[in-house]
Amino acid sequence: MYTKNNKKDVSFENIVFGRNTVLELLKATRRTVNKIMVSKTARGSIVSEIINIAKQKNIALHSVPPEKLDKFSQQSQGIAAEVSPIDYLDLLDLINRAKHSIKPLLVILDGIEDPHNLGAIIRNCVAFGADGVIIPKWRAVGVNEVVAKSSAGAIEHIPISKVSNLNQAITLLKDNNFWIVGAENGSQTLETIDLSFPLAVIIGSEGFGLHDLTKKNCDYLISIPQKSTISSLNASCASAVILYEISKRLNS
Amino acid sequence: MYTKNNKKDVSFENIVFGRNTVLELLKATRRTVNKIMVSKTARGSIVSEIINIAKQKNIALHSVPPEKLDKFSQQSQGIAAEVSPIDYLDLLDLINRAKHSIKPLLVILDGIEDPHNLGAIIRNCVAFGADGVIIPKWRAVGVNEVVAKSSAGAIEHIPISKVSNLNQAITLLKDNNFWIVGAENGSQTLETIDLSFPLAVIIGSEGFGLHDLTKKNCDYLISIPQKSTISSLNASCASAVILYEISKRLNS
Repeated sequence: MYTKNNKKDVSFENIVFGRNTVLELLKATRRTVNKIMVSKTARGSIVSEIINIAKQKNIALHSVPPEKLDKFSQQSQGIAAEVSPIDYLDLLDLINRAKHSIKPLLVILDGIEDPHNLGAIIRNCVAFGADGVIIPKWRAVGVNEVVAKSSAGAIEHIPISKVSNLNQAITLLKDNNFWIVGAENGSQTLETIDLSFPLAVIIGSEGFGLHDLTKKNCDYLISIPQKSTISSLNASCASAVILYEISKRLNS
Repeated sequence: MYTKNNKKDVSFENIVFGRNTVLELLKATRRTVNKIMVSKTARGSIVSEIINIAKQKNIALHSVPPEKLDKFSQQSQGIAAEVSPIDYLDLLDLINRAKHSIKPLLVILDGIEDPHNLGAIIRNCVAFGADGVIIPKWRAVGVNEVVAKSSAGAIEHIPISKVSNLNQAITLLKDNNFWIVGAENGSQTLETIDLSFPLAVIIGSEGFGLHDLTKKNCDYLISIPQKSTISSLNASCASAVILYEISKRLNS
């Protein structure tokens, strides 16, 4: 059961509605589900079963007002699932694949919520030669149709992993000899820093906000030198500058 | 006569409706009008007077389907005007003001149509120390409320000129000893280029599209070195990288 509405920025192409449809989707293993939306008023055994499977599979559950689902479809039966337009890669597979590069470079996104920003950042990752992207499962946008469109096709050209716990992912990267660099107002400015590979760079959300624990896990922090402190860069523009500067080191 | 609708991305705060209201707005000189929207079905002496004044004042006229204006307001009477949230600066004033900098830097935008991109680019201009922004009056978005919001306040911190003819503006800049650099797939890559000031850098729309005549008027063209040609940068990300690289030369 699909509906499509081109008038709005949010595409409905990858939204699946209906209790039995969503239940079967969850039982199948072929497609990645980004999140399940459950109406606050939805009750019943199938609803409970869907919630239980989602919890088992670590899929984000969003409790939403019934109007939100009505907007998508009048036949939602209080349940909808957002299916990913891509297949995510397991983190260890992503790391092992990246290790085939001479200078492995991965990009970790810490809490990017705007799909246009995520699309633009993935586009920058491909343009500047990153080997993969790591995004968190919670409190961040997944790869949906808006992201796909904003990436101008770039999502097809780079492996992406979605992880339940960003700090566990960082630990796994460290175990695999990656240096972890956070983009934050740190002591070292981007242009003078001596970068070592394999490298994982963490981009925070608007205004360079890395979560405190993420920041503590960084080997070092870098910042973009700016002429004016009145204006900061948005997350996608900041990532462009950082990845541009890092990509120079990939060649040297 | 104002209406406001926060549900949509486009803000209506700076849209003025109604025949007499728009006529009086055009006769007054205090506020800058970005464009006039005239319903295809609108007729009458006031409509003709509005069109004539708009032509005299070189204000963009858009002929739109009646439904478009109905969407804004049921009382539009087939006429609406978009008022600028900022006062544009005369180009010569902008140039003369920029000349007070040790290394004057102006940014020319050639046909940016997306207001989010324009806002992000203005934000980059402020962050990296540009002295002013020049935008065309035609076939490009003006500074509206969406641009203001996307700029995160940056529009208040940089003078902006809106010009009827970009190539005449370039001629005036050349008369004032500015070097004109176009961001386009040129022979010189950004990182190795020797930049001279005063400098005006032209950013094209998505995919670095400079208009042919604009390109011919450039003293030289620069391009951003990328690892992959699969993916290009969007206009705001490209401008971030270019202005970041130029801002380094402002310090040296």
